[in-house]
Amino acid sequence: MCRFLIFKGRDPILLAHLLTRPEHSIINQSYDSRLRIDNRRPINGDGFGVGYYTPEADPELGDGPCVFCATTPAWNNLNLARLAEKTKSSMVFAHVRASTAGVLSETNCHPFTFHSLMFMHNGQIANFHRMKRKFASHMKDEYFLYVQGGTDSEWAFALFLDCLDKLGVDPSRPAGINGFGHEMIRNAMLLTIQYIKDWSEHCSEGDMDNEEPSLLNFAVTDGHSVIVTRYITSRTEEAASLHFSTGSKFIEYEPGQYKMERRDRRQDVILVASEPLTFERSDWVTVPTNSILTINNQTVLLHPIMDEFYQTDPSVPRSSNFAASRGLVSPIVEPQASTNVNLPPLEREGRRRLSITV
Amino acid sequence: MCRFLIFKGRDPILLAHLLTRPEHSIINQSYDSRLRIDNRRPINGDGFGVGYYTPEADPELGDGPCVFCATTPAWNNLNLARLAEKTKSSMVFAHVRASTAGVLSETNCHPFTFHSLMFMHNGQIANFHRMKRKFASHMKDEYFLYVQGGTDSEWAFALFLDCLDKLGVDPSRPAGINGFGHEMIRNAMLLTIQYIKDWSEHCSEGDMDNEEPSLLNFAVTDGHSVIVTRYITSRTEEAASLHFSTGSKFIEYEPGQYKMERRDRRQDVILVASEPLTFERSDWVTVPTNSILTINNQTVLLHPIMDEFYQTDPSVPRSSNFAASRGLVSPIVEPQASTNVNLPPLEREGRRRLSITV
Amino acid sequence: MCRFLIFKGRDPILLAHLLTRPEHSIINQSYDSRLRIDNRRPINGDGFGVGYYTPEADPELGDGPCVFCATTPAWNNLNLARLAEKTKSSMVFAHVRASTAGVLSETNCHPFTFHSLMFMHNGQIANFHRMKRKFASHMKDEYFLYVQGGTDSEWAFALFLDCLDKLGVDPSRPAGINGFGHEMIRNAMLLTIQYIKDWSEHCSEGDMDNEEPSLLNFAVTDGHSVIVTRYITSRTEEAASLHFSTGSKFIEYEPGQYKMERRDRRQDVILVASEPLTFERSDWVTVPTNSILTINNQTVLLHPIMDEFYQTDPSVPRSSNFAASRGLVSPIVEPQASTNVNLPPLEREGRRRLSITV
Amino acid sequence: MCRFLIFKGRDPILLAHLLTRPEHSIINQSYDSRLRIDNRRPINGDGFGVGYYTPEADPELGDGPCVFCATTPAWNNLNLARLAEKTKSSMVFAHVRASTAGVLSETNCHPFTFHSLMFMHNGQIANFHRMKRKFASHMKDEYFLYVQGGTDSEWAFALFLDCLDKLGVDPSRPAGINGFGHEMIRNAMLLTIQYIKDWSEHCSEGDMDNEEPSLLNFAVTDGHSVIVTRYITSRTEEAASLHFSTGSKFIEYEPGQYKMERRDRRQDVILVASEPLTFERSDWVTVPTNSILTINNQTVLLHPIMDEFYQTDPSVPRSSNFAASRGLVSPIVEPQASTNVNLPPLEREGRRRLSITV
Repeated sequence: MCRFLIFKGRDPILLAHLLTRPEHSIINQSYDSRLRIDNRRPINGDGFGVGYYTPEADPELGDGPCVFCATTPAWNNLNLARLAEKTKSSMVFAHVRASTAGVLSETNCHPFTFHSLMFMHNGQIANFHRMKRKFASHMKDEYFLYVQGGTDSEWAFALFLDCLDKLGVDPSRPAGINGFGHEMIRNAMLLTIQYIKDWSEHCSEGDMDNEEPSLLNFAVTDGHSVIVTRYITSRTEEAASLHFSTGSKFIEYEPGQYKMERRDRRQDVILVASEPLTFERSDWVTVPTNSILTINNQTVLLHPIMDEFYQTDPSVPRSSNFAASRGLVSPIVEPQASTNVNLPPLEREGRRRLSITV
Repeated sequence: MCRFLIFKGRDPILLAHLLTRPEHSIINQSYDSRLRIDNRRPINGDGFGVGYYTPEADPELGDGPCVFCATTPAWNNLNLARLAEKTKSSMVFAHVRASTAGVLSETNCHPFTFHSLMFMHNGQIANFHRMKRKFASHMKDEYFLYVQGGTDSEWAFALFLDCLDKLGVDPSRPAGINGFGHEMIRNAMLLTIQYIKDWSEHCSEGDMDNEEPSLLNFAVTDGHSVIVTRYITSRTEEAASLHFSTGSKFIEYEPGQYKMERRDRRQDVILVASEPLTFERSDWVTVPTNSILTINNQTVLLHPIMDEFYQTDPSVPRSSNFAASRGLVSPIVEPQASTNVNLPPLEREGRRRLSITV
Repeated sequence: MCRFLIFKGRDPILLAHLLTRPEHSIINQSYDSRLRIDNRRPINGDGFGVGYYTPEADPELGDGPCVFCATTPAWNNLNLARLAEKTKSSMVFAHVRASTAGVLSETNCHPFTFHSLMFMHNGQIANFHRMKRKFASHMKDEYFLYVQGGTDSEWAFALFLDCLDKLGVDPSRPAGINGFGHEMIRNAMLLTIQYIKDWSEHCSEGDMDNEEPSLLNFAVTDGHSVIVTRYITSRTEEAASLHFSTGSKFIEYEPGQYKMERRDRRQDVILVASEPLTFERSDWVTVPTNSILTINNQTVLLHPIMDEFYQTDPSVPRSSNFAASRGLVSPIVEPQASTNVNLPPLEREGRRRLSITV
Repeated sequence: MCRFLIFKGRDPILLAHLLTRPEHSIINQSYDSRLRIDNRRPINGDGFGVGYYTPEADPELGDGPCVFCATTPAWNNLNLARLAEKTKSSMVFAHVRASTAGVLSETNCHPFTFHSLMFMHNGQIANFHRMKRKFASHMKDEYFLYVQGGTDSEWAFALFLDCLDKLGVDPSRPAGINGFGHEMIRNAMLLTIQYIKDWSEHCSEGDMDNEEPSLLNFAVTDGHSVIVTRYITSRTEEAASLHFSTGSKFIEYEPGQYKMERRDRRQDVILVASEPLTFERSDWVTVPTNSILTINNQTVLLHPIMDEFYQTDPSVPRSSNFAASRGLVSPIVEPQASTNVNLPPLEREGRRRLSITV
């Protein structure tokens, strides 16, 4: 089970409003047993990463994002809790990895970054071990050597960098004051998916139709534009879930309870998330399976990805069985009687919590 | 939510059979969402500790237990997974702390040890902060200074050591080849509970009956005898759950599925646990609320703790509401269709698991 | 061995200029073997903490500091390296604990905070275990219960809070827009030292003169004023070293090499540190043993602490043997041929460093 | 700087005698500032790993080793300190990584294991990034996919496995009760070095003679035989240091001070180490540069590796400059006045150490 979250705002937001305070934040989700889905034992664990761009264009701060990673559960990370209360940003990526297979180490921690670029993945490349050599032999040395860990996601990011390069762009140097431009990033992303599809087919041991599909929800940004895919290499299954929400403000109407305020159809706040962050159904729009979402200038665009896995006839339903089996379908959560006690950070209350343990 | 487990065998057992392999082990319980009960967010986390005595009486190994602690989730601890596959012991304590309040640090990690003694707690002392000064001022310097962390449990162990001392025993020097003797340990344990009760009453802000009761399931051993309490400072509520099982062998009849084999009424294997480890109802006997269990020479004894909270009339039921609200009631788990894949340690399979991540 | 560092600037500084980039920063010191002094084995380790106030008065960010702690060596902390490159503050406390006794846990991590207050200690209270009960019984419940770990330093901060309280101030509520005022904080600090002295004497097992003295370099701030002591309970020994530097700017004149720029006698930048941060002797003024330093409105004040340990005759030298034996005397470091390679953060260089390991 | 240590005994030894108690153990070395050599700042850290085979042939324990890894400094690892006091083995590998480049994660932790095999490396493959593709494309899928981290050492082990395979042996299945046999392991090791040499030459950017050499001290065992190389791809430089010691017993003659007892020329105890573990010069024999050491049936064999880097004329000296620049030359340490306080494990002393912190 993974979760990811993207925030893009006209104004910076306190990270706590995204990460730690909402009762239904991705961190609290990862902790909340009612929402954990794949509950069989792996030997691995729960990691967390948040990347954010510093608000003002201060040349001393550079144009790359700041990333904070943890290989321990996010709900238990005091540093994260404190930073979230003291840090603001208008462009945030957050990723929670809970209870899935794979060795946990900081080198496997999303979001991955490369100069001004930041990338994360929710899903998995099916039979990646059969394709790993393809990845390795295809890309230029600098992206091949970029890879430090062992995950399909990091290799996918390296491939994305190589695709940008093949499209004539140096990923270590943004073209201009507005980054690479959303078309360029979108094209590199589509090319990345194309390669993965080709290699999947080529490395398939037999009938592709009987093989497990790949779940390719990718998100990438250069600090200006954001591109997110909701994609699966299947005509009959749904991709991992993906939703977005836009409005004028993301507000806490009571402790731990948030909703999107919408005035004047403004999109000052854009959230994209693998699961709804609020209990208001009307806050969220579901991204259709096999589409690509673009955020440019506080505007959301949606394009279908029209390839062999595209389902032109909308009356043909997809099954959510496969994605659900991977813990990648977010349940629609109804409002509930709140038992939430909005815990302030440890310091501010004079650290009284010590006496209640076992 | 805490869980604890005690193993006492005539022969040593591979720790993996207790900790990592059973589908229903306390580690897997702590991970399994279906069984997590208190699911509201704290800023803290999941820790784990296992203590075991080395099998043979090798003077070079000493008479104290070996303790392995982790402040990260046990299900994610590769070192634990490996050690459990390579270590045997006939006297094991294990403790999982999942999702409860309190700062997580190695100094707060159960089991606590002092020379040959080992101690753990499942529950919590109500309003401990009101009593903390009583603990501090009551005990001898050496036990006062023993305390390093901030938990009620560590203070309770220090108090237990002080009680042993007050009963004329030096807790740093076992009396003989069979340790302190089960009577002495039981008396010190009862005295410990007595003090906590007295101070609770004294520090109460008003009507005791309306106050939250203390949940005092304690376990202590000197490597020879084991004493475990199931106790609550209430006449109407149940204590945190406690069960035991005895038999000739604890066997894995299919991967991840264990049961107690019983031949000839022998008690070669004794398990005491806050929740059943197997799905066989008949394997387990529930310890009555407010009793004290003794293991001596592979025999289990049960005594009631007959004080003001003892309920002489067995027809008066206790409510499990309070203990359940603390996540300390173990559900009776019915057998289920096994989805378990018995994962061998990472090394032995050539570390193939890397490719399935996100 | 501990090190601490205080920065107070008219303008915010990038934390990297204090923590990670200077070749002679307290982090690099803690790593650099040539400067490690007490090199015998303890079972414990190297921790790190930095606390900073957010630059602007944004009510959403609150008035308390943000603290980032690590129980692993600071030079190895990727999160710290990244945050330091992306965070600015005009009021910073940093503390490195390297290779001293005591259990390492986040609860023992300096700086300690309480609402808007932040505190750290460089040194140690001699025979603290004999005084611990005095601390516990003296102070109000809320400060007694504040203590979570086991260190003399955390108890000293709790005592300081209690002293503020006894002086009529609620430490959880700053009096005004400028905090508590430097007189109040200084008085509470002097009172704190007075209590420790009294209890030392009272708990002494015999001839005070033959006992080990206490090293009490404390630093405290409310985000406005800063109070730092350099103090030892001895007439003949020197306290742990303490220096300060003021100027118009703290500049990196070549990679890893810093100096204080001084124009117009301005004190836009004030550094107080247990050891010089630069190789320019003239940058640094040594605080005399048994004095108290105040920073108020970008001005440094020094007052002697005139008690029984004050040495009125300046011709009587103090020995540095005791402080040196604790690793608390900073050598004057001469400039040297720089072997520094100024490592940019891992991301910005596309993570090329992976291939050079063993 | 790395250090490694191999123990092979007729009888099992308490791990503490190798790891934690000797004042000059590899762990204490890694901590002791006087012996740290490369002291410039990297962003990375200190890790540790120990692998041991369980003493008796208990089928339940399997034939593979148990590995305990830490990504925090070994001198600070309480679990290691406790396990070392309670665990015995007759075949031990230990590896300390201190202050070298590379991302620190459990996947990069030596010793690496594969079924019954265990491997570690002291040194580094020069310009590994240029050769990484060669490694990747050369080997069979199962060894290519075995690699999880990013280090040259793990790739070297994967190559060794592939060499065993190419020599007709399945590395996941030992041939017999005595493992693979020392000739087979030695041949696979020599083949491994041959490939690395070939690829180095092929990937060289110009004049090989002006390039940095590779330091290839490898150790491998199947639990029966041990093969260790001391090797450098240079005719003029020395390899990283390597020594061995044999005797009847490894004894602690005073706290923290060890020596090898030699009676009757027996080799009941064999130690191989990157640096001497004792202060007795006569205890240690230096392995010549570019040789391969074999332990078989408690006997040590030495063979030269006679290739283009072999120096037939023993009067031509090699320089130790290069290895020294990598911190891989162990100084000969003279006996010194002991300041060692032999700290017993925290538990056994009733945890009194808490009061001395800062």
